[in-house]
Amino acid sequence: MGTGEVGQSLATGLVKAGHTVTLGSRTADNAAAAAWAADTGGRHGTFADAASSAELIVNATSGLVSVEALTAAGAENLADKVVVDVANPLDFSDGYPPKVATFEEGISLAEHIQRTFPDAHVVKTLCTVNNAVMVDPGRVPGDHNIFVSGDDRDAKKVASGLLGDLGWTSDQIIDLGGLPTARPIEQNILLWLVLSQALGTYDFNISVQRAG
Amino acid sequence: MGTGEVGQSLATGLVKAGHTVTLGSRTADNAAAAAWAADTGGRHGTFADAASSAELIVNATSGLVSVEALTAAGAENLADKVVVDVANPLDFSDGYPPKVATFEEGISLAEHIQRTFPDAHVVKTLCTVNNAVMVDPGRVPGDHNIFVSGDDRDAKKVASGLLGDLGWTSDQIIDLGGLPTARPIEQNILLWLVLSQALGTYDFNISVQRAG
Repeated sequence: MGTGEVGQSLATGLVKAGHTVTLGSRTADNAAAAAWAADTGGRHGTFADAASSAELIVNATSGLVSVEALTAAGAENLADKVVVDVANPLDFSDGYPPKVATFEEGISLAEHIQRTFPDAHVVKTLCTVNNAVMVDPGRVPGDHNIFVSGDDRDAKKVASGLLGDLGWTSDQIIDLGGLPTARPIEQNILLWLVLSQALGTYDFNISVQRAG
Repeated sequence: MGTGEVGQSLATGLVKAGHTVTLGSRTADNAAAAAWAADTGGRHGTFADAASSAELIVNATSGLVSVEALTAAGAENLADKVVVDVANPLDFSDGYPPKVATFEEGISLAEHIQRTFPDAHVVKTLCTVNNAVMVDPGRVPGDHNIFVSGDDRDAKKVASGLLGDLGWTSDQIIDLGGLPTARPIEQNILLWLVLSQALGTYDFNISVQRAG
């Protein structure tokens, strides 16, 4: 779900990995989605088209409208499915640098999605890297890491498998625990923005180094 | 300034590096500070004692009372000096996990200190690692990083020299830019807390890995 750079990049990466992918958008005739489908051999359709036929849903819509998009997809089409949420709820209403929106009582977008669709199994991941790194972790050298947060262990296994399909090794994947751990992960985009300016590149990631 | 674990650890590290260190506290007869001075050959005294005699001030007080402590130190004792701010403004008033306090208009503690004491040269650093790693970066393997944020280039050079005295190599130090870059750096403690729980250790740090 989501026809922006992140959505298209992930959809292409998942097609290359052998998955059947429907790129979901607000309307059935979205030009970007149609062009993507023609290029890749993937499918495209409305959020509801994409979600109803899917075993797994990736939310790559803009974070501020994700719940609206998932509502359009249909709660019944999310039930008992893994929803991999990669969205960054960036709020540019006060200019740059943006704020990361939080939701009721300061919760993360991922938790907000989980509360809104309690029958879905939400896993937060991938929002800490640029879309090029998401689908090609090998472009950054070293044992850099990607994080998963979620309340359902099986859903995190499925999401980790999807990360594996994109090239992330199991050593690179760090399970942070329950979905509330998505809060600092979503806020991390602000450090990512500062680092990208300091380094002059989007082609980076962080690696967690431990003693012993 | 600050007789907690971080303050004592940094003070000891700086004594070992050959610096003359006065451990500053609210009162002249602080027992922890006196014990530290007896152990290390350092000095101790009030915040004002410490600041008035110092070439450089390290703020290792609890972030929520740092401005109060620096006010007790005396604005005249901070003027034209480098103030290395390592404090984390953690707010546990709503329980765990804590919030990271922000100040007027959402600015960081470091910026709040800078605005309150405009004649000081504030540099934010070190707040992204445990106190043991602060003074002994070699305990974590690999080329992990430490960040400096500040509006004054010369002050950042001085602060980077101090980091060097503690064992950080110049390759490990990343200059993020102006003091507003301290905002995501201060928020990073929330990711640090989540990581420390997932890893089961405080002995870790992040490394920034770049392509090319």
